[in-house]
Amino acid sequence: MEVNLFIKRVQAVRKMMAEKQLDLCLLFDRASIRYFTGLRMNTAAFSILLISQNDLKYVVARLDLNRALRDCWIKDILPFPEDTPDYLSVLNHYFQQSYISRVGMELPELNYETFKYLQKTLPNAVFEDIAAEVGRLRMIKSEEEIQIIRKSAQIADKAMQEALKAARAGMKEYEVTAVAMYTMLKEGAENPSFEIFLASGENSWLPERYASDKSLNPNELILLDMGAIYQGYCSDITRTFSVGETTSVQKKLFQDVLRIQQETIQSLRPGIQTGEIDYIARQKIQALGYGDYFPHLTGHGLGLDIHEGPIIDKGRTDILEKNMVVTVEPGVYLPRVGAVRIEDMVLITENGYEILTQTKRDLIN
Amino acid sequence: MEVNLFIKRVQAVRKMMAEKQLDLCLLFDRASIRYFTGLRMNTAAFSILLISQNDLKYVVARLDLNRALRDCWIKDILPFPEDTPDYLSVLNHYFQQSYISRVGMELPELNYETFKYLQKTLPNAVFEDIAAEVGRLRMIKSEEEIQIIRKSAQIADKAMQEALKAARAGMKEYEVTAVAMYTMLKEGAENPSFEIFLASGENSWLPERYASDKSLNPNELILLDMGAIYQGYCSDITRTFSVGETTSVQKKLFQDVLRIQQETIQSLRPGIQTGEIDYIARQKIQALGYGDYFPHLTGHGLGLDIHEGPIIDKGRTDILEKNMVVTVEPGVYLPRVGAVRIEDMVLITENGYEILTQTKRDLIN
Repeated sequence: MEVNLFIKRVQAVRKMMAEKQLDLCLLFDRASIRYFTGLRMNTAAFSILLISQNDLKYVVARLDLNRALRDCWIKDILPFPEDTPDYLSVLNHYFQQSYISRVGMELPELNYETFKYLQKTLPNAVFEDIAAEVGRLRMIKSEEEIQIIRKSAQIADKAMQEALKAARAGMKEYEVTAVAMYTMLKEGAENPSFEIFLASGENSWLPERYASDKSLNPNELILLDMGAIYQGYCSDITRTFSVGETTSVQKKLFQDVLRIQQETIQSLRPGIQTGEIDYIARQKIQALGYGDYFPHLTGHGLGLDIHEGPIIDKGRTDILEKNMVVTVEPGVYLPRVGAVRIEDMVLITENGYEILTQTKRDLIN
Repeated sequence: MEVNLFIKRVQAVRKMMAEKQLDLCLLFDRASIRYFTGLRMNTAAFSILLISQNDLKYVVARLDLNRALRDCWIKDILPFPEDTPDYLSVLNHYFQQSYISRVGMELPELNYETFKYLQKTLPNAVFEDIAAEVGRLRMIKSEEEIQIIRKSAQIADKAMQEALKAARAGMKEYEVTAVAMYTMLKEGAENPSFEIFLASGENSWLPERYASDKSLNPNELILLDMGAIYQGYCSDITRTFSVGETTSVQKKLFQDVLRIQQETIQSLRPGIQTGEIDYIARQKIQALGYGDYFPHLTGHGLGLDIHEGPIIDKGRTDILEKNMVVTVEPGVYLPRVGAVRIEDMVLITENGYEILTQTKRDLIN
């Protein structure tokens, strides 16, 4: 992506800082940092981004310094020694020289040790939570981000299709997810966007949320949930399928959930509250007598994180806007019958929506 | 593993709690929780373990409840609603009924929101860090754990060997790691133990710590670092190889680092300080003039976490004991020449050590 895009994002933070009278923002969240730096880092790597009206400093492990200097548009990059917990000491000089009374941070996910260190180092500073403000910026995707998300969804589709092609009665759950993972990586995904999860038979309705060594049986409903990370951006798709003939009860459950998912998607448009979308899905599920068997949310935003705003769940008041990307994934987990969940990624458009994941949905024999 | 083993571990915590006069321990760390529950959870799942002298309560997401009830040896399992941040409210009743003045937690990694919630809910309680005590328990492996770790190392070996077989000049870095990942999962690994990292040519000496779309060239040093998670336990192995003829300078660097790694391993035995092991490796590297190009630690413990105690680094005073498992991985990253790191997993035995990872080391043409 172009440097200009990152500069605009930093400007948006500086504007927010002026409004909230913050002297400094310190970011520790991987996804937020990538949003401003554009730099891919190893998933185990830790880094810090400092933003003030005049400064933009990126603090990385010594081991990542040379690459950050080569690849990142930010030029003021400082190293901390690898494998010591003293990440923040490289900023002490800066903290001492500057007037800092109000510091913005994404507080909820911050770790305790970092918070204690900052409290000690800046004893007179007040720490303000800016998670909502940064989340708000990230929620509305630019055209460049939407192009990348489309490609991420395509990779997820391809991995899903290869896994569906490979799946046979007698195969172990994890042998099927191995195919999905291999396909994703070969197609250029950085990583899966979460632990790929295949649950068959009893594992589906419990549910057991990982691929086990259980073998697939012909008469089971099988739920496969996966996503890729492409250039930082997450995709997410679920399909329910069978590797043999299912019962009429299973078929009815499948058709009911698929219809509810499609009807829920049709309610998506700019201006609708996410709680209202959730209510639409939940009421339809309730009306068919499945109300006790839908134990999760209806959908979530995704981008640099697999779960980010807006969240489509009970009582949520977020309002959909153009260029948000969300999942719609109602599910019913029926003891002794099976679980059905169908999940697609949906882009909110000027007047409605566009479904980004394309894999065929009708996969039950 | 047998229930008895988990009961013993809980007993060890209760003994520590009596000594430190703790009324309660609350664990949030995934690996520590698995150490006591034995239960595999989806990597995105959150759970809490509460230990007191009389109680042992496991708190899981509503979506994970049925499976936890089926599979976990702990019987007092409580659900919190999925997808709300109010994880801890299910414990409010317990907090109100019990006398709680001292609470043990693994504080450094705890998140700020959880800490604030507990401070508010238990305003008179003191929070004590028990990370060192829990880490100490986990550091010494039982015979059952060592069997699992051996298998985890075998899976890493197999994945490494398949990747080495597949690697050819002209292939993209990520096409090679895709083979490693596929092999691992097919062999029954739950997940990779960290992001598999292949770095060739310039990417190796910078280093760039992920597999990019760069193609492998014949005259490059190529570094491949990977590990599996098998039944919760991590493995870790690095090899440096080439897909064509290397220069005499590259060959010398390779032979130097390999010899240093092997000589460093030979110093491992019960009773030695980890700082001393690091000094042995670092001095040998220094003596050959590579001192400025070894930007990381010499090794680390591994188990349910990929990085846990003991840490083999500058100035560390941990002392090796029988049944610890550590890596030894000195590396030299030489600009314009290439990087060489060779990493093996080593079990500390009664009188010395046993190398667990077996893949051939001499891989340079």
